[in-house]
Amino acid sequence: MTIQVIIAGFKGKMGQAAYKMVVEDPNLELVGLLDPFTEETELAGVPVFKHKEDLAQLSADVWVDFTTPKVAYENTRFALENGFAPVVGTTGFTSEEITELTALSAEKGLGGLIAPNFAIGAILLMQFATQAAKYFPNVEIIELHHDQKKDAPSGTAIKTAELMSQVRTSQSQGLADEEELIEGARGADFDGMRIHSVRLPGLVAHQEVIFGSQGEGLTLRHDSYDRTSFMTGVNLAIKEVVKRDQLVYGLEHLL
Amino acid sequence: MTIQVIIAGFKGKMGQAAYKMVVEDPNLELVGLLDPFTEETELAGVPVFKHKEDLAQLSADVWVDFTTPKVAYENTRFALENGFAPVVGTTGFTSEEITELTALSAEKGLGGLIAPNFAIGAILLMQFATQAAKYFPNVEIIELHHDQKKDAPSGTAIKTAELMSQVRTSQSQGLADEEELIEGARGADFDGMRIHSVRLPGLVAHQEVIFGSQGEGLTLRHDSYDRTSFMTGVNLAIKEVVKRDQLVYGLEHLL
Amino acid sequence: MTIQVIIAGFKGKMGQAAYKMVVEDPNLELVGLLDPFTEETELAGVPVFKHKEDLAQLSADVWVDFTTPKVAYENTRFALENGFAPVVGTTGFTSEEITELTALSAEKGLGGLIAPNFAIGAILLMQFATQAAKYFPNVEIIELHHDQKKDAPSGTAIKTAELMSQVRTSQSQGLADEEELIEGARGADFDGMRIHSVRLPGLVAHQEVIFGSQGEGLTLRHDSYDRTSFMTGVNLAIKEVVKRDQLVYGLEHLL
Amino acid sequence: MTIQVIIAGFKGKMGQAAYKMVVEDPNLELVGLLDPFTEETELAGVPVFKHKEDLAQLSADVWVDFTTPKVAYENTRFALENGFAPVVGTTGFTSEEITELTALSAEKGLGGLIAPNFAIGAILLMQFATQAAKYFPNVEIIELHHDQKKDAPSGTAIKTAELMSQVRTSQSQGLADEEELIEGARGADFDGMRIHSVRLPGLVAHQEVIFGSQGEGLTLRHDSYDRTSFMTGVNLAIKEVVKRDQLVYGLEHLL
Repeated sequence: MTIQVIIAGFKGKMGQAAYKMVVEDPNLELVGLLDPFTEETELAGVPVFKHKEDLAQLSADVWVDFTTPKVAYENTRFALENGFAPVVGTTGFTSEEITELTALSAEKGLGGLIAPNFAIGAILLMQFATQAAKYFPNVEIIELHHDQKKDAPSGTAIKTAELMSQVRTSQSQGLADEEELIEGARGADFDGMRIHSVRLPGLVAHQEVIFGSQGEGLTLRHDSYDRTSFMTGVNLAIKEVVKRDQLVYGLEHLL
Repeated sequence: MTIQVIIAGFKGKMGQAAYKMVVEDPNLELVGLLDPFTEETELAGVPVFKHKEDLAQLSADVWVDFTTPKVAYENTRFALENGFAPVVGTTGFTSEEITELTALSAEKGLGGLIAPNFAIGAILLMQFATQAAKYFPNVEIIELHHDQKKDAPSGTAIKTAELMSQVRTSQSQGLADEEELIEGARGADFDGMRIHSVRLPGLVAHQEVIFGSQGEGLTLRHDSYDRTSFMTGVNLAIKEVVKRDQLVYGLEHLL
Repeated sequence: MTIQVIIAGFKGKMGQAAYKMVVEDPNLELVGLLDPFTEETELAGVPVFKHKEDLAQLSADVWVDFTTPKVAYENTRFALENGFAPVVGTTGFTSEEITELTALSAEKGLGGLIAPNFAIGAILLMQFATQAAKYFPNVEIIELHHDQKKDAPSGTAIKTAELMSQVRTSQSQGLADEEELIEGARGADFDGMRIHSVRLPGLVAHQEVIFGSQGEGLTLRHDSYDRTSFMTGVNLAIKEVVKRDQLVYGLEHLL
Repeated sequence: MTIQVIIAGFKGKMGQAAYKMVVEDPNLELVGLLDPFTEETELAGVPVFKHKEDLAQLSADVWVDFTTPKVAYENTRFALENGFAPVVGTTGFTSEEITELTALSAEKGLGGLIAPNFAIGAILLMQFATQAAKYFPNVEIIELHHDQKKDAPSGTAIKTAELMSQVRTSQSQGLADEEELIEGARGADFDGMRIHSVRLPGLVAHQEVIFGSQGEGLTLRHDSYDRTSFMTGVNLAIKEVVKRDQLVYGLEHLL
């Protein structure tokens, strides 16, 4: 059986990528499109709407939302009230809003997802790093990005280090009396773990977590080349929320 | 509280490594050593024995066994009967023996481990690869070994592919009509996954599992430099079996 | 002093990239553009032409050519006759044409380049691999491409192996009596060197040349993410041909 | 024709490795051994000596020296005076001594080598990095060592950066206004290049030089697993010095 999908915000960059992904998957059926900035009323046989209220009577399973922070909360509420399981990639929800939408989803018995990040590979990397840190407390992170990135270390590297520090036996990497001949050589110190940030043209977004132990090493690496990678996660979420009966925050809870 | 440990087969290569590991860990206390080929009766304050029966009265928590296939079954049985939780790295057990020893351990309420492989990194790699294969069916394996290795692919690569094939949506990697200009370029085919075996001097034992998806990649790599890496696993097993009440086969069941 | 540049074929994909590269480099000055399919007569202050003859009187140092096989020979001839050093990325020249154009360039005392490949990184990789193969005969190649690639191994991998085989002591990698448990595991055999081809979505074009020797390893890797990388080579060629007095075939002769 | 070799200091660690290497190479013939701490007068058919003077009458081509700083200068002088081309791995020569020995070698028309480092892979890596830095000024270094190493960055990393800075267009890697959220994230600054030092158990000595450019990347990596790797360089030196007519300092001059 195919899953019937609505896409809200289909004219944006992410909405367009979602459109392409849904129509190319034989297990999904696109049944409605929403965007306030559209002039069309139909696209390849699929009805197109400017106002969410017009979608209330549609038969659909999942509401994919890549709109704007201003309307995403109202959209998600509307989806749940009309029986559509929401898969929301829009950011800007307050924690009160998430709590409220989770309660509403449970009341309706509908699954759903609000996620700041749909890159499955990045999420798996963090999960694996956390599992490995239990057994291998000796670990350093190298993150490599294009040279237009302003902050170092990257948010993902810091989040990975935070997750590992929750399960890792705290210790300081390197020799107790090690010396930096040039300042900064040993990288940033996060709870004794060292993080190194490489910035070069040509690179996109890459992260390595390197564990070392007597006689062995374990390296986990994620390479992100472009945002189309998010669609693997959106596709997974669509297929997963229809089996659930409550909304969750964070794609990791559907893995 | 420290864990009291006996080492059987302490004169062998693995036994010596275990000896070193136990005396260097302040949370472990070495209380007895066994080896038929020893002449000593004491080693750094620890009593040394030639016959297992002489150890029956010893107060100890764990029996580490790196002996020979011929005596390992009897040793493990003896350990369980005398209240020592066995951690056994000797190979050659039949599945009947394992079933019987597991039953005996349950009866005595003692934890224990019989493991063909104590390399935690290799086991984690297989676990992570299996988890990732659920979401990323596009995967190939590269294993790299020293050039004195006879078989290709390695046993670990085949086992990793087997584990992934149990959860992965079966598919053939590469273009349907791809062509090998030189035979063998696309590697060994295991359920559609490709395995590539590199053999070079200088290398020891390394494995990469590479997942690809639209716009992203995930790579898991394990490097094994020498057998001392096994001791991380033996150390973990000693600390874990004392909390259990039944013997298991395979270190993965203690992770 | 800036170098004055003409771009022929500026409306095509490569021509557009060349246009962008030239205007962004303060050491280069764009003085004329040529394309039969243009309607403009000026672009940001630079005169635009439809016929090459109209460029004869222009003061310029270098003629960059990304046109079509049909006109590239005539264009290059025209450039040399009018005192412009040609940098030609168009393919399809016969070896007679190249010999003739080289002779003409020598007669005129003008440098020039005809190149099938402007990716400096790929060319450096091949040069380094060839140098290393003199000292490290033990070598294998892994090339990794997107899964829409039809042929395996890649042309670059085969060319790299050819170059190495000219200087390498011929030998067969791996144990003399090694066994493939699954056919193809040891890859394609090129003069005893093994080549392994990985095909996965998400990948673009990557190549690793791995040398092994007693107690050490040397790995050379090139990652190609997109064709904009060619412009680094075009820029280098423009600055190099003005110092030369004869046309060469292949960017490696300008490195 | 085989090359006849003497080994001075054959009882030491490096001397033993050299002994093994020479007897296993059919193109080399061991004709004499020297060590003050030996009791043997013969080893597998090869005469063994305690005093260098006793070797004066021997017919030999090359004098391999792994002795001590105290005697190496006198040994090298003795070798040259008796017509043996020296290959010296002992350290501690003053630059005056090297100048003097070079002059003596030229007078005698004998090749020779004094080298602080025989790891060909490490030397090639530095050469390749220097060549690449001419075309790719965007570069960072990651060096990875065992966690007992005191200094960071490693001497090899600093030497590599020095060599690159001689040919590289000086520039500062990263965004002009980049910010370190945690101090040290961007590594050590050497003439604008960043160097990152990883320290983990299990690692030995590894170095990556990563170049980035628009749309492409080039990575050079050297892995050093143990000192036996030096023998590849000693073997090469033996075969090279017999073709030369002057002593050089540094293995790079024989590549």
